[in-house]
Amino acid sequence: MTKQQLIEQIRRKKSYLCIGLDTDISKIPQHLLTDPDPVFTFNKSIIDATHDLCVSYKINTAFYEALGVRGWEAMEKTARYIGNDHFIIADAKRGDIGNTSDQYAKAFFEALPFDAVTVAPYMGEDSVSPFLQHEGKWAIVLGLTSNKGAKDFELQMMVGGDNKLAGDDTNHGGTNDGGEKLYEKVLRTVAEWGSTDNLMFVVGATQADEFVHVRKIVPDHFLLVPGVGAQGGSLQEISEKAMNKDIGLLVNVSRAIIYAGSTENFAIAAREAAQQYQAEMKQYLKNM
Amino acid sequence: MTKQQLIEQIRRKKSYLCIGLDTDISKIPQHLLTDPDPVFTFNKSIIDATHDLCVSYKINTAFYEALGVRGWEAMEKTARYIGNDHFIIADAKRGDIGNTSDQYAKAFFEALPFDAVTVAPYMGEDSVSPFLQHEGKWAIVLGLTSNKGAKDFELQMMVGGDNKLAGDDTNHGGTNDGGEKLYEKVLRTVAEWGSTDNLMFVVGATQADEFVHVRKIVPDHFLLVPGVGAQGGSLQEISEKAMNKDIGLLVNVSRAIIYAGSTENFAIAAREAAQQYQAEMKQYLKNM
Repeated sequence: MTKQQLIEQIRRKKSYLCIGLDTDISKIPQHLLTDPDPVFTFNKSIIDATHDLCVSYKINTAFYEALGVRGWEAMEKTARYIGNDHFIIADAKRGDIGNTSDQYAKAFFEALPFDAVTVAPYMGEDSVSPFLQHEGKWAIVLGLTSNKGAKDFELQMMVGGDNKLAGDDTNHGGTNDGGEKLYEKVLRTVAEWGSTDNLMFVVGATQADEFVHVRKIVPDHFLLVPGVGAQGGSLQEISEKAMNKDIGLLVNVSRAIIYAGSTENFAIAAREAAQQYQAEMKQYLKNM
Repeated sequence: MTKQQLIEQIRRKKSYLCIGLDTDISKIPQHLLTDPDPVFTFNKSIIDATHDLCVSYKINTAFYEALGVRGWEAMEKTARYIGNDHFIIADAKRGDIGNTSDQYAKAFFEALPFDAVTVAPYMGEDSVSPFLQHEGKWAIVLGLTSNKGAKDFELQMMVGGDNKLAGDDTNHGGTNDGGEKLYEKVLRTVAEWGSTDNLMFVVGATQADEFVHVRKIVPDHFLLVPGVGAQGGSLQEISEKAMNKDIGLLVNVSRAIIYAGSTENFAIAAREAAQQYQAEMKQYLKNM
């Protein structure tokens, strides 16, 4: 899906909601467990109940891999069932040396029908760039994540401006001589490896104080924002602080929607939860 | 596998060789392509030909995921075929928020019989610690990788000593007030989250100049060292610089062994290549 197509979907549905299919077999309604493929059956019901309210689904690969081969099968069936009208994200946090990232890109963009993969930036440019070589496909690189561990490295201070190597006294155009946080360096550096047409960043909703810095560094990129719902981030605050002229936001909610109900009415409960988020988003989109 | 069992295997076989099963279906001998499961058949032949020369096999998950469900099946069959006498690594570079890393740990340690998973540190403690909760299982955390992109972030300078938060003027015991590289901070910080019995680090053989710094920070941990062979790192140099009282090294070779031959004799060629590495390792182990 191209950026223009994504923006059109958002404007048409008045929603920038991404629903996270973190489908945990120990948390789905008990009556589904006799089904031959309970994870796919659960996902299908959630998708049927919510597809008009969201523009994106995010499949958290860990929950599928935990089930082995049958989990991988359920992931593939789910991605194919979602179809072409939604932006389908593999939340896989991949990233390796070039020849290996190239294989991951093939896994999610060719063997499977995903539009985007989340990518960890630690290993640098050759670990990210293979995800940028596929027409109409996206890398969503981790910037500042929503979890407690973000303080361990992402929020730590780096020396000097951008691209300053250890032992290198020259400053290659950094605008931030007083130093910057690791995640800021990541946003600034990675933004040069792709464009707003193939690169997004993950910025957690629980990090609302940082959104003003994020938008200074990447004013035009789409951001994938997890952390609303079970993790406690405010949809209003991030919408006010981080929306740009293209809207520029995909806000993910997983557990607060897919586990809104735990009985046979779970899909209706999920729809009601998704409707609340969509109605709130519609307000923030009024002047767009 | 426990640390003591791993050390015993190394001493018995006089080898700290790990063979990387980065099995690319486009690179295996042509005659295997008519086999119903060419990837597993290739791996089985390599394992049969080399099992007495190495103490570990490393399965690069990307090459299996690129084949979809049948790739995941070949990975599972390969891991089970290797059995309990080798240290089996899932080179998967996983890492996510706590509840999700927990699922990845289940995927590789419960649904699959791996001893260890490689883990990316960017997201901090709660993304790593779920891999440390499984008896006899290991997290192998990325320190300094072998690829060109290591310079983008891993080798960049951080402000101050360890655990220094942005906006926090106190120094929580860092010994390195002049600053340190990101990878050094990662080694120093992550080492506190586990022990030498459940935590190893990845340090690339192409980074030989840095091994002296690495061993100052983590003198007692095992290191998984990729980058010998196709990537050009020197086995002699890293063995001299990084071996410790427990040997403390697993040196991985992938392409230079598994693709040593491209005809029907590929397994014999792989054995000969592995024998050369093992013979060299035996020399370096003479005084251990």
